[in-house]
Amino acid sequence: AILEVNGNLSCRCAKTTSEYISPKKYESIEIRPVGSSCRRTEIIIKLRPSGKVCVNPEAPWVKKLLKRIASTKKK
Amino acid sequence: AILEVNGNLSCRCAKTTSEYISPKKYESIEIRPVGSSCRRTEIIIKLRPSGKVCVNPEAPWVKKLLKRIASTKKK
Repeated sequence: AILEVNGNLSCRCAKTTSEYISPKKYESIEIRPVGSSCRRTEIIIKLRPSGKVCVNPEAPWVKKLLKRIASTKKK
Repeated sequence: AILEVNGNLSCRCAKTTSEYISPKKYESIEIRPVGSSCRRTEIIIKLRPSGKVCVNPEAPWVKKLLKRIASTKKK
């Protein structure tokens, strides 16, 4: 196993992508806030039919996505 | 099994809580946007050391949490 430079041994993402992923392609978004196990926020998108991808929490489209979810109103 | 009223058979949350959960108590947040399998946004918080809880996506603290993550800047 490769040790990560900053000692964040329980981080899930070795690298992240900032590339846009269409909502049609994923079924869920997992957010792992900064905590004792990993000293950075991690956002992992579960693709369908299978696979997971780590996205850059600072990518503009990721921020927009979270803001959109946060501002959803019930009809 | 109990069928849900609105026919959303693949939804994960039968009910949600709006009660505040301290960030210390959870390790990740899973967001399931509206999709073919469930016609409402679902937010599931994974507690530590174990357990999962569905939270109300419209609870003010949940919205604030997502906005905070969306506006995180790298130091």
